[in-house]
Amino acid sequence: MRIAVLGVGLIGGSVGLASRRRLGAEVVGWDPDPAARHDALERGALDRALEGPDELDAVELIVVASPVAALASTVAAACAAADLGAVVTDVGSVKAALVARVAHPAFIGGHPLAGAETAGVAGAREDLFDGATWYLTPQANTSGERFERLHRFVAGLGAVPTTIDAADHDRVMAAVSHLPHVLANLLVEAGAGALGGEAMPAVGPSFRDATRVAGANPTLWGQIYAENAGALGVQLDAVLARLTHLRGRLDDLEGWQRQVAEQRTALLAAVAPGARLVELRVHVVNRPGIVAELALTLGRAGVNIHDLSLTPAADDATGTVALWVAEGEADTARRLIAEKGHPTT
Amino acid sequence: MRIAVLGVGLIGGSVGLASRRRLGAEVVGWDPDPAARHDALERGALDRALEGPDELDAVELIVVASPVAALASTVAAACAAADLGAVVTDVGSVKAALVARVAHPAFIGGHPLAGAETAGVAGAREDLFDGATWYLTPQANTSGERFERLHRFVAGLGAVPTTIDAADHDRVMAAVSHLPHVLANLLVEAGAGALGGEAMPAVGPSFRDATRVAGANPTLWGQIYAENAGALGVQLDAVLARLTHLRGRLDDLEGWQRQVAEQRTALLAAVAPGARLVELRVHVVNRPGIVAELALTLGRAGVNIHDLSLTPAADDATGTVALWVAEGEADTARRLIAEKGHPTT
Repeated sequence: MRIAVLGVGLIGGSVGLASRRRLGAEVVGWDPDPAARHDALERGALDRALEGPDELDAVELIVVASPVAALASTVAAACAAADLGAVVTDVGSVKAALVARVAHPAFIGGHPLAGAETAGVAGAREDLFDGATWYLTPQANTSGERFERLHRFVAGLGAVPTTIDAADHDRVMAAVSHLPHVLANLLVEAGAGALGGEAMPAVGPSFRDATRVAGANPTLWGQIYAENAGALGVQLDAVLARLTHLRGRLDDLEGWQRQVAEQRTALLAAVAPGARLVELRVHVVNRPGIVAELALTLGRAGVNIHDLSLTPAADDATGTVALWVAEGEADTARRLIAEKGHPTT
Repeated sequence: MRIAVLGVGLIGGSVGLASRRRLGAEVVGWDPDPAARHDALERGALDRALEGPDELDAVELIVVASPVAALASTVAAACAAADLGAVVTDVGSVKAALVARVAHPAFIGGHPLAGAETAGVAGAREDLFDGATWYLTPQANTSGERFERLHRFVAGLGAVPTTIDAADHDRVMAAVSHLPHVLANLLVEAGAGALGGEAMPAVGPSFRDATRVAGANPTLWGQIYAENAGALGVQLDAVLARLTHLRGRLDDLEGWQRQVAEQRTALLAAVAPGARLVELRVHVVNRPGIVAELALTLGRAGVNIHDLSLTPAADDATGTVALWVAEGEADTARRLIAEKGHPTT
């Protein structure tokens, strides 16, 4: 099997590595940046660098991993240059507009939920997609043969191919990924506005958690907002309507707060079916090594920590460690932590 | 010195413990819940439980630590029952409305930024307030003598007394604490709406981070939203205006994203003056003990981890550990982590 990768950053490079090592494919590739082509060859992500993005003869499958704004033109060029019967796919975060713009039978949209942060081919890994959802958005003009080939390819990279309508994909991503970025930005603006240069009060980890993605990769996110303006606009309209409603009844929101608590539990429980996670909050003295001790204690007993966050108190001398462990292991974890002398809530 | 604590939960109980042990004060106290009174005595938070909240003779300082909704009546009753010259304070999250409602010369509003999550006296600790900002909101009718006594008392508990206008306090809290809770709730609603019961796609930690406080303690937060409806309403209006503006230019937000990135860096740098934190992202194999190894390695070299979050990849076999360390220790940390064979970005 011979495949081409157009754009060899983190995602394209990882596709190349996994294709070569796991599928035994011959991988050719191109990147507008000569240094990226060089690095991709050196890292073993490519067998051969192409001189241009249109040298696609005798290639069965072409993965376009360009920045979002360059996807449409690169995908269209690939469809034009590819052999009859080849399949062209991409890895962009937004699907409906691209699929509509290209409208070529060779093209099937794709979106792996992995390596979302942009980084160069230096971060590429063969196992980047292991277990990751990889959305595929076939259209009415997609042949079964092409779809089957792409599906098998994605599974061969270690990912879980998941077929979804392009518009549904964009709607879900708008709600669970793009809207959170917009609201995180608004929180930063609100904080900066209210503080006017004064030091941020130590209100706990909530503000940092809530704004962790604020201002993420401006070039990438500017493109994502623009590309998904339709679905994101619908989400913003919904938020505007809800906020206007809530604004009128700020003195009566306890019921709403309670309902959201239940919704969040249900939503996050669905993240890892069969492995419902429980949060343990441990109060500790904040010194080097303390997290290590906790993790080692649990690790020795075979309790895996799925997520962990350490929040120092204002004096930095004590802190709270939030640990997420599987529900079935929570009692063991609580007992082990108590034996170490740390209170858990 | 003799003080009274009205309401002996986490905050009131910690005030009692710290007052007795650090200030050598005699602490009397009351709680509507007889079990809480019993536990407070047992934990050493009180020298003596009062039969009612009005037995306040010979008490110099009264700390009201009731739920937000009960503050005004309890504070007013305490002001009426207290000796001439006594000072009455509270620990509520919202100040302006309470201060205006009470309007008694004995009362000075207070708000420690510690132990925000409600929990019983079982979680009370002598050191809960160490290094924590403790806002005080004196009014025009506050005597210098009362203010000085309260200021010295708060500092004696280990906190950093910080004088602020009640309205300014509420404006800042609305922006950096109350608004984040409202927006986190809206994100949960958006996610639940878009997914309609389907499993949440593994979009990384951003959704969980962004919604960590969603649905927090409904009774408490219902009261906080209501009590701070004025300042929170102003924040919601600002968000509504910004969202409406952004809604109209979703295809041109790169500059905004860039500006927010700078604002967030500036805001969070101000959290810990002199100890600017740097985030290191370490790619690791996700097995029990791995976080322990990292933390131990850094701990041995004296590098303290200020914040830490482990994000498993979709397959749970690998993951990214985000570590926040002081800027001056980042190079050391990077080198030590590299020596252990983990790539850092």
